[in-house]
Amino acid sequence: MKQARSAAVLKETKANLYEQVADKVTRLIENGTFRAGDRIPSVRRIHKDMKVSVTTAIEAYRLLEDRGAIQARPQSGFYVLPHYPKSIDVPDVPRVDANPTPIQMSDYFRMIIHDVGNPDMIQLGSLQPDPELLPMHRLNLILSAAVRRNKRKSLLYDEIQGYKPLRVQIAQQLLAAGCVVDPKEIIITSGCAEAIMLALIATCEPGDAVAVESPVFFNLLMLLELFKIKVVEIPTHPVHGIVLESLEDALKEHPISACFANPNFSTPTGSCMPQENKRRLVQMLAERAIPLIEDDIYGDIYYHAERPWAAKAFDTRGLVLSCSSFSKTLAPGFRVGWIVPGRFKSRVEHAKSVGNSATATPPQMAIAEFLADGGYNRHLRNIRRLYAQKITAMAKAVERFFPKGTKITHPKGGFSLWVELPLPSDSLKLYERAHQRGISFVPGPLFSARQKYENFLRLNAAMWSEKAEEAIATIGYLAAEL
Amino acid sequence: MKQARSAAVLKETKANLYEQVADKVTRLIENGTFRAGDRIPSVRRIHKDMKVSVTTAIEAYRLLEDRGAIQARPQSGFYVLPHYPKSIDVPDVPRVDANPTPIQMSDYFRMIIHDVGNPDMIQLGSLQPDPELLPMHRLNLILSAAVRRNKRKSLLYDEIQGYKPLRVQIAQQLLAAGCVVDPKEIIITSGCAEAIMLALIATCEPGDAVAVESPVFFNLLMLLELFKIKVVEIPTHPVHGIVLESLEDALKEHPISACFANPNFSTPTGSCMPQENKRRLVQMLAERAIPLIEDDIYGDIYYHAERPWAAKAFDTRGLVLSCSSFSKTLAPGFRVGWIVPGRFKSRVEHAKSVGNSATATPPQMAIAEFLADGGYNRHLRNIRRLYAQKITAMAKAVERFFPKGTKITHPKGGFSLWVELPLPSDSLKLYERAHQRGISFVPGPLFSARQKYENFLRLNAAMWSEKAEEAIATIGYLAAEL
Repeated sequence: MKQARSAAVLKETKANLYEQVADKVTRLIENGTFRAGDRIPSVRRIHKDMKVSVTTAIEAYRLLEDRGAIQARPQSGFYVLPHYPKSIDVPDVPRVDANPTPIQMSDYFRMIIHDVGNPDMIQLGSLQPDPELLPMHRLNLILSAAVRRNKRKSLLYDEIQGYKPLRVQIAQQLLAAGCVVDPKEIIITSGCAEAIMLALIATCEPGDAVAVESPVFFNLLMLLELFKIKVVEIPTHPVHGIVLESLEDALKEHPISACFANPNFSTPTGSCMPQENKRRLVQMLAERAIPLIEDDIYGDIYYHAERPWAAKAFDTRGLVLSCSSFSKTLAPGFRVGWIVPGRFKSRVEHAKSVGNSATATPPQMAIAEFLADGGYNRHLRNIRRLYAQKITAMAKAVERFFPKGTKITHPKGGFSLWVELPLPSDSLKLYERAHQRGISFVPGPLFSARQKYENFLRLNAAMWSEKAEEAIATIGYLAAEL
Repeated sequence: MKQARSAAVLKETKANLYEQVADKVTRLIENGTFRAGDRIPSVRRIHKDMKVSVTTAIEAYRLLEDRGAIQARPQSGFYVLPHYPKSIDVPDVPRVDANPTPIQMSDYFRMIIHDVGNPDMIQLGSLQPDPELLPMHRLNLILSAAVRRNKRKSLLYDEIQGYKPLRVQIAQQLLAAGCVVDPKEIIITSGCAEAIMLALIATCEPGDAVAVESPVFFNLLMLLELFKIKVVEIPTHPVHGIVLESLEDALKEHPISACFANPNFSTPTGSCMPQENKRRLVQMLAERAIPLIEDDIYGDIYYHAERPWAAKAFDTRGLVLSCSSFSKTLAPGFRVGWIVPGRFKSRVEHAKSVGNSATATPPQMAIAEFLADGGYNRHLRNIRRLYAQKITAMAKAVERFFPKGTKITHPKGGFSLWVELPLPSDSLKLYERAHQRGISFVPGPLFSARQKYENFLRLNAAMWSEKAEEAIATIGYLAAEL
């Protein structure tokens, strides 16, 4: 009896001890000593520095892992994950009217796109990468040398499919996304937007309907408008992505020609579909022979230990058209993206050849060499860490400066922070006021063909900086004022 | 009376004398001493070398000008024009059924496009420039230096409209095409095909009809098929271009959403519309507020003294969308073209931004610098001369090797030679036979939505070489055999 009690006390003490260690490390994370993406001291260092047993150090780290504060990476150590303010909730799954809707875009789209070209604006709108995090020096040197070495190839039309060494490199990269792809199955495009456009041309006719996530990437809505394709908006969970039950209902109710999804770090919510959901999504569509157009452009910018798979990884019937590009990671100005179109390859290739013959050769050469050097993966490791820090800092600023009751998503990758303002709020009006003060962001209604999400806005965390912090403060102030 | 007769005799002798001189020069042209594009001896040299009076030399040259053998260029001298065999006629204006026709392309198109990627083929099909006539060395060096100097600009998204210094250079070049254009009115595209695609998106809806030249550039037919647009084929004169009376009739009979024309060195006929026809074309369409989509891609590759104006030069109401690119003159692989869309600018810009955001930056930088250096005009002078020689040589080979009764066009610019075989002939069958022997050309039926022109074929004179001469002989032999 006595012995039993003393064992319990001992256990309690131990529990307190590893909790104490965990709390100390948490403080170091919260005060910025260790930031998102940083490696924290090893278990052995904690054992020595904090004078606790190795077991206690291990248990402390396990606790931190359970709390989602850190993550182990094999053969590397423990890393800080992005941490979103606890005082601030995640938005709910939206309610959506899932009837086919023709699209008519407002002029706000043009304003947002034009903001990008305005050097005096604080750019929290368009999801561009931070220019300082592009490999400017190295990539330009490689381009410079590559065209001098391959003078003839540089100037001539390449194959419609694109520069072969680049397709080989992309096939290698796709392994990490769970995809085993023959370079012959890849078509290089002028960015991801063109890849998606080609996918739509290959799978839909004017008047057709496409099922999309809601909220959805507004560039997609513009593409659908251009090709007179209707949308069926499917509610999307801010953490787990498209709600499969809702999609299933919609498939039963409406003729759907294709489904568009952004399974990894969706724009705007940043949601990432669990593996099992991706598998079910692909299967559910395959049963009805409906193509899935996947946008995987943020797949490489994940903040956790491993790259989430692309939905393409579960494609056994060639029905997934997977689209991506190097515009977020390497060089938006190079306009190099790609599509793995599965059974739609010949249609996509035909549309590509008719629309612009091929993608410009010199940028493809440069990117192929950059990848072959191993430069890409090194570069990715670096920017992942920095973007995780940026999005954490931006979430913190939103918590600090936005009205009480504001909610934000907790993305595990990408740059997009989706913010829900307490009702009533009018983010279009907020955009106009912010715009007058030289700040651009994307108001919520642009992410829906039915102009929902009037109390939401999307922020580009890639552009986090001191100036951006002031801009967040200004938006918060304006939101409270409205 | 006696005096009168002796004056007549004298005149006759004189006539004989300058005719003799002219004939001697003609022989030198025919035997290849002076080839198309070459400068021939000055009047003063003829006077000295042939020991005739200056007046006789001048008259001889006037006679040669009247015969279309040479042409004076101000402050420069006399130049040999391309000369087509006299024994061989020009095809007639085709008879065309001008009812709106939906397009369904045959698989031959894919074959032709795939031939391009086959290094073992003799390429007389796709109208690519001769790789040896591209400024490989210089343009790559400029690109190489430009991206090292502008590391940031090279990697970032540029304006949707494209790199401004390039638009300034294009505006300067367009002066020679009779167009006074603000760089702000120009949108850079991924080649001319994309420019035309954007023009179609900006002016037509699926189901609409577009009036086109007949025979017409087959890539256009593929674009129209992709966007479900019908064609109304308008007979086109092999020398003067689209027959305006026929166009007028068609405009009265059918609702036409846009007209597509290739006023300078049309594909496939090589026809060039006289200034007055261009003016009337623009006016006729403007009266009905119908947009004209102009393809001016060969405008800079003229064989005579002056650049023919673009139809855009006559556009007073912003209804002409003028498209072109550097793919025929500088670097097909760079994918840099442009459109001057007139009043459709915001629609074209929107479609561009939605479809692929912008054109790749590095190739634009390189071309802008190449043009600013004056390198472009020097380069053009050189290739014009060489292409004139190539097309002359190819015409001669067709005369020599093709069956009696064959007709060819006499293009004054571009690379395209349009050949009419004596009836009955089946150019699709001919293509298949030639293809088996490693030769590609484009059979006539591909230039019509109604598969007309079954006894025609298009040859790319840019690829003239010894091997091409053998290929022409083979095609001629096969044609006779069929």
